Order: sequence, then structure tokens, then C-alpha cells
Amino acid sequence: MKEKEFLEIIKSTLNSDYIGDDCAYIEDLGIVISQDSLVEDVHFKLSYTDAYKLGYKSAMVNISDICASGAEPVYMTVALSLPQDTGSCFIQDFYRGLKDAAGNVKIVGGDITGSDKIFISIAIIGKTNGRKISSRANAQIGQLVIVSGEHGNSAEGLKMLLNGETPPEKFSHAHLMPQAERDLSRQIAENIKEPYAMMDTSDGLMDALSQIASSSGVKISVNYEKIPHDTRLDKETVLFGGEDYKLAATIPQELLPKLKNVFVIGRVEQGSGVELDGEIISTNNIDSKIFNHFKG
Amino acid sequence: MKEKEFLEIIKSTLNSDYIGDDCAYIEDLGIVISQDSLVEDVHFKLSYTDAYKLGYKSAMVNISDICASGAEPVYMTVALSLPQDTGSCFIQDFYRGLKDAAGNVKIVGGDITGSDKIFISIAIIGKTNGRKISSRANAQIGQLVIVSGEHGNSAEGLKMLLNGETPPEKFSHAHLMPQAERDLSRQIAENIKEPYAMMDTSDGLMDALSQIASSSGVKISVNYEKIPHDTRLDKETVLFGGEDYKLAATIPQELLPKLKNVFVIGRVEQGSGVELDGEIISTNNIDSKIFNHFKG
Repeated sequence: MKEKEFLEIIKSTLNSDYIGDDCAYIEDLGIVISQDSLVEDVHFKLSYTDAYKLGYKSAMVNISDICASGAEPVYMTVALSLPQDTGSCFIQDFYRGLKDAAGNVKIVGGDITGSDKIFISIAIIGKTNGRKISSRANAQIGQLVIVSGEHGNSAEGLKMLLNGETPPEKFSHAHLMPQAERDLSRQIAENIKEPYAMMDTSDGLMDALSQIASSSGVKISVNYEKIPHDTRLDKETVLFGGEDYKLAATIPQELLPKLKNVFVIGRVEQGSGVELDGEIISTNNIDSKIFNHFKG
Repeated sequence: MKEKEFLEIIKSTLNSDYIGDDCAYIEDLGIVISQDSLVEDVHFKLSYTDAYKLGYKSAMVNISDICASGAEPVYMTVALSLPQDTGSCFIQDFYRGLKDAAGNVKIVGGDITGSDKIFISIAIIGKTNGRKISSRANAQIGQLVIVSGEHGNSAEGLKMLLNGETPPEKFSHAHLMPQAERDLSRQIAENIKEPYAMMDTSDGLMDALSQIASSSGVKISVNYEKIPHDTRLDKETVLFGGEDYKLAATIPQELLPKLKNVFVIGRVEQGSGVELDGEIISTNNIDSKIFNHFKG
């Protein structure tokens, strides 16, 4: 069974309006909240990462979820489960990494328990004050489609790490110590006036665009050549590789001059699905290509 | 290594003011937040519980943390990791249990991933509006020590379940489907004027009292005979057995008439530690007796 099928069951059991975006927007409290987990041998292996990098990435992945909403990440809690024989240095290094990635996001609690394998689950809160909050269902026809950087580097790094190779620094860094796009998220959310869609590309660029297209009832039309990428990568890795944690957003033309380091890759149009260089990529096709780690 | 040693390392690495109480009180947002995890074969075994009860208890345990702070539980996110071969009925039953326990607490998000064993981590938010928030460091000399019900039933139920016995309904229910003390928490937090300490007794009654005593720099003096308990249980189980999820609080005498179903078991005095029938129980002694499941 796949994550998306599970989610459908959960949605129908809970009958909740909130399940859908990566963050839940809780208007009465002025916050968004998100929770994401990393499981040993599912999302990472200790053969190619270490406690510091693991802490760093765990925090960044969650900060990225808040950035995708447009809110300001402010507080997190951390649940950590560890084998009984884990030493104190591992814990220290993990929390050092967590703290370094967190920056001014305060770590305010959580718990620590025993387990066979390492399990990390972080809940994070963002403040919505002064920010316009995105939704993947809010793409508007005529908006530009932008991304914040190169795609495919993280997946390429992981592929090499799993093969026991030493990836070029750029690729291993992209995978092991990703950077959430805090500045761009703030620039957009503080300046945009109209509804907009924004996601991080944790499950790959095509996945993000396809989610936005189907939730918003629009077509997303993009050109491959405009997608920033390292020329050593193949097209499949650039389009479908996960965990780059860049932002993909739909914004009005007039906002563009206010943003730094963004790349216009296409446009929101009438229709449905994602169109790449004139050819529609079906959602099923994307689902089956989504980069799913070791999940098989 | 034990949980408390881990926590000391985390505290010193993060240098955070927030780590201490079960909930972090975030005053600028008017919320408290808490996160708690349940791990298969550490906190539960599928040999004696099922998906519905597991969902139910997971929600209650977290609601109980918010109740201990005095805040009103309002939103939760749920991270669930499951073996690949888990069927859809398990997920459905788990979320039905979760929803039934949640009541008017809204489940607003979370994630679902693969894993070898079942991991459940729930983050929960409480609203502090109109409530006075407790801290385990706030017990005041002269306050009464109260509890909200019987202790030891859950531990007795677990002991029998692990032995393959069928516990009396009362004990198995206490362990598998605990009830958070929402009403009492609200009654106290809406009516109390002065600082007070309140904890749930998830790690046992003596543990809660000892945490309050040491954090507040006071002595907690209690009488065993006043602690409500089933007479079939031995003293050790009543005092140190975990997971009853009752409340233990220190309150002023004048609040007592406003509260329903509470039991006065002692008083906050000058000094340190927990005094049971005139005899001081040292903290080390309590630490070593804390009911730690399969953690060994």
C-alpha cells in the first residue's frame, strides 16, 4: 500500500477539512502547523549520514514545510526514538545539528523513547502574522510558475551514496544538508496580494506541480530548459527526483522584480495536469515515478 | 542509558528554557504545545491491544498532557509509521479510535511513512485563553495536594496482559483506554487565581509528586490511606505504577468546593522531597522504581 492510498483512508475516516496541504492553517490561533517524520532505513541509512547531519536535515525538512505555507517558522518539538545502546555523543551531535539548522526557530519540547531503529518526528509551528498563506489549491490562471533553484541534485546524491560511491560535494550536500528557502518564502508571503500556490519540492518537482494543478483545477505549463539543473543529471532525475526542498510557486508577474534568485519555468493556464514542452504528463504517470526512497 | 540522562544532555545542548514541563507554554501565541510518542514493543504490544484502542490511547495520552497544563486541547497532528504490509482496516480502525478519543480536538494533519514496527507520534496544541497555566515549579507552601482518581489500575492491567492473563475489565480498561481529565483540568484552570503545580500521573503518582517537589523546591507530604486505590493492589503498584493519566495538583483550600471528584491526599510544606506517612522517599529511589515498560 502506498502513502497516497493511506491518506485517502485517513481523510475519509476523519472527514477533516485540514488534511491536504503540508501545513494545516489554523486561522483562529494565527498559526500553521506541520509534522514530518524520518525513519531509519526508510528515509536514511547510518551508512552514509551521521547524527549531526541527521539532526540538521530533520529540522530543515520541517522548516521547509512551514516555508511552503508562507508562514514564519517559530517553534518546534522533537520526538526521538533510539536503540537502547545509543551513546550520549549521538544525542549531543543530533541536537547540535538540529539547533544549527533551526537558527531562530526555538526547540520547545518533545520526548525521547526507546526503539529498535531510529525514529524522528518533528512538529513545527509557523506564525502567519503579516504573511499571506499559500494553498496548493490557490493557483490562478495567468500566474507565473517559479522555482527557487536546481532540481535533481539531492536524488543524484542519494543514488551515489546508496551505490557506495562518493558523490560530488554539491550532490551529497543537497541530499544530506538541504537548505529551506526561508528568505524567498518571506519575500513572497510579505509582498503578494492575491491567492497563490506554493509547495516545497520534497517529493520532486513534477509531483509538486501536479498537486498544484489538480488541487487548483488548472494546467501548469512548463519548459524543461527553463528548469535550473546540473547538466550532468538526466531528465528523469531533474523532474522526478525528490528532497531538493526548493520552493515551487505560482505568482503574479508584478511580484517578480521584488524576488531574488527565482527562475520562471512556466505559466498557469486553463486546463488540467502538467504540460512539459507541450506534452501532458498524466498524474498516474507522476505517481508511479515519485521518488519513494526505499519504500519500493 | 535512561530517558532522564538523555534529557539532561538535550537540555544542556539546546540551552532551552522550555524543556521541563510536559507542555511548552508559548505565551506570545496563547498556546501550549506537547508531543508524545508510542512505539510498538516499547509502549505496547499488538498481542494485547488492537488498532482502535491504540488510536484511542494515543490521542488520550496527548490530550492528558495538555490537561496537565490547564489549557484547552484544540488541535493535533498525527505521525504514523507502519510496516508495508499493514492493511487498510488497521488504518481505518486506528483513526476511528483516534477520532473517538479526540472528541472536539481537531486532527489537522501529520504524515504516514513506512517502518519495521509501528511508531505513533502526536503533537497537540492547547489554547490558554481564559485559563491559568500550571507549572511543576509552581507549587506553593500551604496548598493542598489533590489527585483525580485511583492509581495503580493501569499498571496492574498491563502486568496481567503481559502475563497472558485476562485482567478484570476495570484494570484492562484503565491501561488500554485511559481517560484524560478534561473536566477537572478546566474547573481548576478557569477558577484558580494563584500559581499552582499540576501534572498527569503518566509515569506514576510518586514520580509526579517528586517532580513537583524538586522543581518547586518544596516538600510534598501525603498519606497513603488517602490515595484512592483498588484494595486488590499492592502499595508499590499504587505508588509507582504508571499510565493512569490522572491529575495530581497543588491547589488552595478555597478552590476545593468548586471541584468535583477530587481527593485530598496531602499538603505542600517547607522542605524537600516526597514524604509518605512521615517517611521521606528519596528521588533516586523513585527514579529507579519508575514504571518503565519494557525499557528495562
